[in-house]
Amino acid sequence: MKIGVFDSGVGGITVLAELKQRLSSVNYVYLGDTANLPYGSKSPAQIETLSIRCAQMLKQKEVDALIVACNTASSLALSAIQTVMAPIPVFGVVDPGVQAALGALNLISLQVDPVPILVLATRATIQSQAYGKSLRNTFENGNTFKNRNIEVFEQACPLLVPLIEEGWIQHPVLDQVIQEYVRPYLKEFKKGVALLGCTHYPWIHDSFQAALPGWQVVNSAWAVAQALERSEFFKTAQKPDEANVGRVEWMFTDPKALPEFAKKFIQNRNARDSILIQPVLNA
Amino acid sequence: MKIGVFDSGVGGITVLAELKQRLSSVNYVYLGDTANLPYGSKSPAQIETLSIRCAQMLKQKEVDALIVACNTASSLALSAIQTVMAPIPVFGVVDPGVQAALGALNLISLQVDPVPILVLATRATIQSQAYGKSLRNTFENGNTFKNRNIEVFEQACPLLVPLIEEGWIQHPVLDQVIQEYVRPYLKEFKKGVALLGCTHYPWIHDSFQAALPGWQVVNSAWAVAQALERSEFFKTAQKPDEANVGRVEWMFTDPKALPEFAKKFIQNRNARDSILIQPVLNA
Repeated sequence: MKIGVFDSGVGGITVLAELKQRLSSVNYVYLGDTANLPYGSKSPAQIETLSIRCAQMLKQKEVDALIVACNTASSLALSAIQTVMAPIPVFGVVDPGVQAALGALNLISLQVDPVPILVLATRATIQSQAYGKSLRNTFENGNTFKNRNIEVFEQACPLLVPLIEEGWIQHPVLDQVIQEYVRPYLKEFKKGVALLGCTHYPWIHDSFQAALPGWQVVNSAWAVAQALERSEFFKTAQKPDEANVGRVEWMFTDPKALPEFAKKFIQNRNARDSILIQPVLNA
Repeated sequence: MKIGVFDSGVGGITVLAELKQRLSSVNYVYLGDTANLPYGSKSPAQIETLSIRCAQMLKQKEVDALIVACNTASSLALSAIQTVMAPIPVFGVVDPGVQAALGALNLISLQVDPVPILVLATRATIQSQAYGKSLRNTFENGNTFKNRNIEVFEQACPLLVPLIEEGWIQHPVLDQVIQEYVRPYLKEFKKGVALLGCTHYPWIHDSFQAALPGWQVVNSAWAVAQALERSEFFKTAQKPDEANVGRVEWMFTDPKALPEFAKKFIQNRNARDSILIQPVLNA
């Protein structure tokens, strides 16, 4: 079995890492559209055009399923990607993230009413309102939340991806910037659920948790790996031989545009990985 | 007369503002390649491809001269742009910035020897070494610096553009980030010349000056406007009628991808400007 992971850049590596941990019996193709990153600052029309082009590349690679790790593409171009890939199943990160956030309600005392659910993501993801809409729909149509109320907040955190890509992960500036973003919510609510809706944020999950003591912090990168593992598709699909699994084929639309920290991550790979960095430059 | 200003995004607005101040007797066409920003994270090959496409758009607009406001394009694609535009004159920002930095040597006491010249720019500009090479060449071939020595340093400041675009211009985090970048040089040298080699940096010129007390801070956005004003081309070119000048035609490859702060700038325009925001989406 070969699973495709698509991201606008390198953030999807967090999703791939989680997938490999949970689903070691499959091979992976990772496609990062580094020639066009970041999607977060582009318009919906252009995000759809670029996502379709990437889906076509992955279809040619004959993947058995596709994970859209990019939150922006999941929010704005999922159905366009599904049309290209059909009948191959496509998993976005938004719905699994929403399931994880609502699942975390069980960990919050019934005395907290309503429970604040704070979505933290890039500006494009927040502006798409994909998480907010999915949270409200799923909550209203679910049977398990009868005795709860939620209040959804969405906060764009556009400075975090640059800080992470620069490697300022242990830097006091990172904590200050996170505090600036969460302060208004923390002031109003002592407990709640924070949903990290950006592939880069698992790298700073602990910093979010430190900035939001008393809150449950969940992230959609981990959630989508869990969703795939539990899916009917995965349970019934044929797995490859043990000797031939766990490989990652790396594709970047502009391999020269890889951030330094991502190169290190790819080089520190599992010895079993067979790595092919493949330029697919858009003319 | 119609002057084209090309930038990867909106930073070139600082160059346009300076041009309009100095050269009010001309019309302008501004082209921001917002569909593909930022150039700073792309590979040299892709930067050249994108720059050529933009030069072709501006040639069709029949500009009389072109300012390449984008430092990344000036550093990596100037000759490709010149080939497309010939015989129309093309001005990059690197050489004017270098002239301004070397000119500032006169303001530094002879007791400072060598004089440190610190180039501050995005990662792509620094990696191109365009400023460093031009500084050393111009210095070695100049006659006016015989009694001086210089030492060139280049520092990438990749977090500053995101902070500026987010409007964190008066924020303590901005000052902290600048201090982090300049600290090693300030520790070694009490006086020197700092050359701001990024179109966004004029917006935070004062913060750089505050972080580098005793240093001369020059920026290439202002320098290129001065270079055009002093050029043979400008002195001999025919000027338009007074009634018909100072207009700016705005073009963006993706007008929906404009940062909020840039929209505000364009809306707070001089009443004489005739503004046309023109979508030129790349398919």
